[in-house]
Amino acid sequence: MTAAGTATTGDVRPGYVLWFTGFSGAGKSTVAGLVAARLRGLGAPLEVLDGDEVRTHLTKGLGFTKSDRDTNVLRIGWVAGLLSRHGVGVITAAISPYADIRAQVRAMTTNFTEIFVDAPLEECIRRDVKGLYARALADEIPHFTGVSDPYEPPAHPEIHLRTSSSTPEECAAEVLAYVRSKGWLAGADQTP
Amino acid sequence: MTAAGTATTGDVRPGYVLWFTGFSGAGKSTVAGLVAARLRGLGAPLEVLDGDEVRTHLTKGLGFTKSDRDTNVLRIGWVAGLLSRHGVGVITAAISPYADIRAQVRAMTTNFTEIFVDAPLEECIRRDVKGLYARALADEIPHFTGVSDPYEPPAHPEIHLRTSSSTPEECAAEVLAYVRSKGWLAGADQTP
Repeated sequence: MTAAGTATTGDVRPGYVLWFTGFSGAGKSTVAGLVAARLRGLGAPLEVLDGDEVRTHLTKGLGFTKSDRDTNVLRIGWVAGLLSRHGVGVITAAISPYADIRAQVRAMTTNFTEIFVDAPLEECIRRDVKGLYARALADEIPHFTGVSDPYEPPAHPEIHLRTSSSTPEECAAEVLAYVRSKGWLAGADQTP
Repeated sequence: MTAAGTATTGDVRPGYVLWFTGFSGAGKSTVAGLVAARLRGLGAPLEVLDGDEVRTHLTKGLGFTKSDRDTNVLRIGWVAGLLSRHGVGVITAAISPYADIRAQVRAMTTNFTEIFVDAPLEECIRRDVKGLYARALADEIPHFTGVSDPYEPPAHPEIHLRTSSSTPEECAAEVLAYVRSKGWLAGADQTP
């Protein structure tokens, strides 16, 4: 299908997947939102598979056990694969804690870009923007990544953002520069 | 997003959804397969959300109660919506027995085309290609459409195929003629 599609006018633009991964509170959604706004401003075809929409339409009923997390991430990855192979840019910001599952998603998608949103766990706990860490540390939330569930950091992410030492705007600019350097904005406005 | 996307070169081709609906054994997959092969031959961007792939990646664990069926159909519809709004043609062939859910999918997608694959239930039972009707009639399969579960035929389908009086090839040709008449193959080979 891809081979046939690329021969037509509809699929000239390469698709890609900006896969943000990191602890809750590390800044994934903030940076992803800034990147999405910039890409939309350029008129580039884009889908943001954000947490709420995905939970409503795709993964309702799933919890946070290893098996349910894996299903959740693989399901997002499958949809990202369908879109990216048709020239759409896709942004996701699930915690996606397991390296092997992220590797599976990489294999399912076009131009998979692993973006490690790296912030020290202590700082995420200190920020605790959603009040979730306090509840997790009080044993009120089971399977909470970083507290009672593991996080396997990317060994070789395409982009490594450190949100404790860079602003969200600086991080977004780094992601956009990467997308641009890859030629994935062909046809869209290329001015900065 | 759609508005921004259509302004760029990547999204000039309109997406559409060929939504086959009808009894098990009516011929949905057969006709859908012929249509898909023809569209691929034309180099048109296409995704077939076929039953097996959908069940593996999207709806594993769902059964056939009204609630599970609705979730299944709406989930396929959500993915079809994402793809069709980015210029991809989508083919689905779920039984999708409930009119209100098909109406919801229509609202979620671009150029939704309801294709009623109409065959008398008696003939589907007589054919029984998968041996499912025999089991359903013996009470071995609960919630089986046409036997122990309702099917609400489309009141105003865009395309009404009668597989008891037309060959699969004739039915596929009718669908292709409709797609072509709508201009959804712009840029693809337009020869018959």
